[in-house]
Amino acid sequence: MRYSRMLIPTLKEVPADAQVQSHILMLRAGMIRKLAAGIYTYLPLALRSIRKVETIVREELNRSGAQELLMPMVQPSEIWESSGRWNQYGPELLRIKDRKGGEFCLGPTHEEVITHLFSNEIKSYRQLPINLYQIMDKFRDEIRPRFGLMRGREFIMKDAYSFHINKEDALESGYKVMYDAYTRIFTRCGLKFRAVEADTGAIGGNYSHEFQVLASSGEDTILACDACEYSANVEKAESKYEMTGEVEPGSAEVVEVHTPNQRTIDEISAFLKVGPEKLIKTLIYHDDDGKFYAICLRGDEELNELKLKNHLGVNAVYAAEEADILKQTGAPVGFAGPVGMKLPVICDFSVKTVADGVTGANKKDYHFTGVNRGRDFEPIAWADLRCAKDGEGCPRCDGGILHEYKGIEVGQTFYLGKKYSSKMKAVVQDENGKDVAVEMGCYGIGVSRTVASAIEQNHDDKGIIWPLPIAPFAVEILPVMMKDDAVREAGEKLYGELLELGIEVLLDDRTERPGIKFNDADLLGIPIRITIGKKSLKDGNVEFKLRRSQDVELIPLTDIVTKVQDTIAALMAECSGE
Amino acid sequence: MRYSRMLIPTLKEVPADAQVQSHILMLRAGMIRKLAAGIYTYLPLALRSIRKVETIVREELNRSGAQELLMPMVQPSEIWESSGRWNQYGPELLRIKDRKGGEFCLGPTHEEVITHLFSNEIKSYRQLPINLYQIMDKFRDEIRPRFGLMRGREFIMKDAYSFHINKEDALESGYKVMYDAYTRIFTRCGLKFRAVEADTGAIGGNYSHEFQVLASSGEDTILACDACEYSANVEKAESKYEMTGEVEPGSAEVVEVHTPNQRTIDEISAFLKVGPEKLIKTLIYHDDDGKFYAICLRGDEELNELKLKNHLGVNAVYAAEEADILKQTGAPVGFAGPVGMKLPVICDFSVKTVADGVTGANKKDYHFTGVNRGRDFEPIAWADLRCAKDGEGCPRCDGGILHEYKGIEVGQTFYLGKKYSSKMKAVVQDENGKDVAVEMGCYGIGVSRTVASAIEQNHDDKGIIWPLPIAPFAVEILPVMMKDDAVREAGEKLYGELLELGIEVLLDDRTERPGIKFNDADLLGIPIRITIGKKSLKDGNVEFKLRRSQDVELIPLTDIVTKVQDTIAALMAECSGE
Repeated sequence: MRYSRMLIPTLKEVPADAQVQSHILMLRAGMIRKLAAGIYTYLPLALRSIRKVETIVREELNRSGAQELLMPMVQPSEIWESSGRWNQYGPELLRIKDRKGGEFCLGPTHEEVITHLFSNEIKSYRQLPINLYQIMDKFRDEIRPRFGLMRGREFIMKDAYSFHINKEDALESGYKVMYDAYTRIFTRCGLKFRAVEADTGAIGGNYSHEFQVLASSGEDTILACDACEYSANVEKAESKYEMTGEVEPGSAEVVEVHTPNQRTIDEISAFLKVGPEKLIKTLIYHDDDGKFYAICLRGDEELNELKLKNHLGVNAVYAAEEADILKQTGAPVGFAGPVGMKLPVICDFSVKTVADGVTGANKKDYHFTGVNRGRDFEPIAWADLRCAKDGEGCPRCDGGILHEYKGIEVGQTFYLGKKYSSKMKAVVQDENGKDVAVEMGCYGIGVSRTVASAIEQNHDDKGIIWPLPIAPFAVEILPVMMKDDAVREAGEKLYGELLELGIEVLLDDRTERPGIKFNDADLLGIPIRITIGKKSLKDGNVEFKLRRSQDVELIPLTDIVTKVQDTIAALMAECSGE
Repeated sequence: MRYSRMLIPTLKEVPADAQVQSHILMLRAGMIRKLAAGIYTYLPLALRSIRKVETIVREELNRSGAQELLMPMVQPSEIWESSGRWNQYGPELLRIKDRKGGEFCLGPTHEEVITHLFSNEIKSYRQLPINLYQIMDKFRDEIRPRFGLMRGREFIMKDAYSFHINKEDALESGYKVMYDAYTRIFTRCGLKFRAVEADTGAIGGNYSHEFQVLASSGEDTILACDACEYSANVEKAESKYEMTGEVEPGSAEVVEVHTPNQRTIDEISAFLKVGPEKLIKTLIYHDDDGKFYAICLRGDEELNELKLKNHLGVNAVYAAEEADILKQTGAPVGFAGPVGMKLPVICDFSVKTVADGVTGANKKDYHFTGVNRGRDFEPIAWADLRCAKDGEGCPRCDGGILHEYKGIEVGQTFYLGKKYSSKMKAVVQDENGKDVAVEMGCYGIGVSRTVASAIEQNHDDKGIIWPLPIAPFAVEILPVMMKDDAVREAGEKLYGELLELGIEVLLDDRTERPGIKFNDADLLGIPIRITIGKKSLKDGNVEFKLRRSQDVELIPLTDIVTKVQDTIAALMAECSGE
């Protein structure tokens, strides 16, 4: 492609409302333009990268036996009512009416459509397993669209849905196959990523992984082991509670001490001159049925609300309001404790590492010291309720240490079980002629977000540094002075030669000043740059440079095509996963 | 692809609500399923054909210098207000509100988005010409969606937009280039089509062609010359008025005759015993400003309302109500005539072929005979207002005859001029540094409709007969009995050999009865069928049959791969346009 004939409206200035690098750089590199909040036009350069991600996704899914189809964006309310989500799904589901008053929504996801289709078309276990996917626009009416393609409202997604006759197949030949396909996909995209154990969120089900592209700007926090494969979203990460060592209960007497206005861990710790690891923190929570609990953790640990919710098996948990705390514990905020607590007490395992601890006395301005589990209080349950932390031991292996990373979720796999199939009557006859609801899985990849996350992970202060497999072009030829006949002719000749070999090449045929052309080349981030200058050309050489490296090599014009071919092969091999 | 692993839910019965063949056959062949009125899921088989059309479209547009981008489906009202179409566009524009109450629509077309983009990004004539296109879902809230993919609400469309500095370039290097690209596209799809002159409709502008796939079920009527290139939608087709010969006015006296209750052409003709070609029919019309006209045509001609609208240069024309006719002409319906008419009279050229004619007397139950133009009445204008007809002489060449065809519009090209650019400030600096609004063109192809129209044109009572370039597969291998080891093994071996050669092949590996497999093969319409039967296999032969032919050839198994390759090459050559 000739630069002069391609719409690449680069910008020198950093756009005012762009905060993250992918947003800034995609705007500056002329890849995207905003039409409305969270709604973007993909200009030709961006579309080339998007198509490359799509092609990799398609190849790997086809290879895994999945079939591509295409479902509508506009979906009737009836099918969402049959799944129960028409009312359950929040305002991110954009509900619309057609000219006749019929109720529809813009598809944020397609579980309903695919399950509806399945229930009409597939009747026998013999037709299973089946995995159907599509790549298309989704719409989610985010309350606060931001960060360019990272959190848009209209975006390109691949969504796949698998159907199996039983749970074993669903996990082995369904979930596992897709997990492997996803691993190959992001490897082939040239991205550094982790597959992390995740919460299933609103979509339901009970088995899920997030595929997280590692980038310091990521919104998600991941803990990953440095010795084994274990990775988890911090919301879900397990903790090795033995890390700090379970201790036997102590023998001190319980003493009530006056602690006027000392409410927080820091305040009590300073006032009583004991470390926070000697304190038993007590938090009052209630579920969505209004049932209250006292949750205890060691003073230096944080509660993971998601774990609490899952432990209780409820839809939601909420920290109690001040008035409720007074009513439920008899004391204002800051003085709750497990001793004499009227509410059911649930203890995080970390409380087992405290002997002769300090807790609130359920009485204004008083705490207890010398508190010990078993003797002074007994929880209704012990559970893993704390947030895991950087530097802790891995819960899955010996000796491994968890490290914290920031990540961008670009894919997620879910085992759904019968959540949709039972409600929407997606049943087949099994071997015995009996109707059974099928086991489902669903699997998403944010295609446009994958492109943005590649930029978050791969850029410097000058611009994008594309991984070759998803770069808009493999090579940029930069003739420094198009007005110089020899330079221009060498550029055109090389351009033709590379095109003939099927290599995707951008020829910067503009008559701009060299400084502008070099800056744009760095901004666009094409992996291989070949600079043709008047002086080196006289000696029969051109300059060869990788965008990711500082090194410039002088290569004889006669060798440059081979050099390009070898470099492309080497860069692709890095992403082959082999 | 193995039939047993692909979702192809064929139906034996004709679905109740399907009327046209493409709808019936796409449902029966398991290609599409309805989700809501005019909203369909494309199953894997349909998607394969759609992608083939998309690939041909993309290749030809890229070859013509156009660039692909991708614009949003959800569009803010502001840009539609700036073009004036937010209010002007009817209820087919589905207007929606997001969670914050912002007004948006689902894109039925993208003139606004592209012109908005252009006006922000392109500033100089040096960046022109430019042609930008996309392939994506459109939504039009049709009042009466019908005929499956032929008139859906959500559908796949290619839309391109060209920008030029002046009208000459816009027509020569813009419109003409796209016209040629469209001709190549539909030729390469293997379709019989005509590029016909068309009305520009609501989209505006003043130069347009429709690309019509010829099929007896088409909703559009086309008149095409058998000698030259001239083709036009009957709504727009010119007439050669000399066809029946202009005659000199006659010399008979005007006589008022009593014609009680004789109102229609047929009634008067029978009552007065004169042929309808001797009558001057007078119709009363008004425009959208309420201005009335009397329109005269020869008795055997029909008024083309579109031509009248264009002749008057108004937004719309309407046949007058009975009450208005009485008020405007002084006589009830059926007795109007040009003699003594108070309204402005406009005559179709056909009136010049009438001498001593018969007309209404503008008086209840009376007509005039012996009426002659010039002497008895003088119109304010002569114009081409009649519908052209099958069998008439071509208006563009000598000796050519117009023939009527039914067609399905699959593409349309428009020269838009400055319609959008002037309203939406899409201006560039010209060579003299002066701001000028750019000249635009827009060019659509209904991708999903192209697939449906291919079926309308190519089917028989057993099923679809795909043109090879857009067939889901080139070859179907049909082993008659999968349970026979030799048959199955021969099928598998041939399947592998064809796949290795990059040939798209469907292996019917089901253990269904032969009758079912043959019926499904005819229904699916894959161009080349290779049947492997036990008996012929024993002699080392397989059966080779084209879907479009009745002939079955016995081909030695050793020659079948070559036979397939040669046949594919020959079938593709038919669609090469060379």
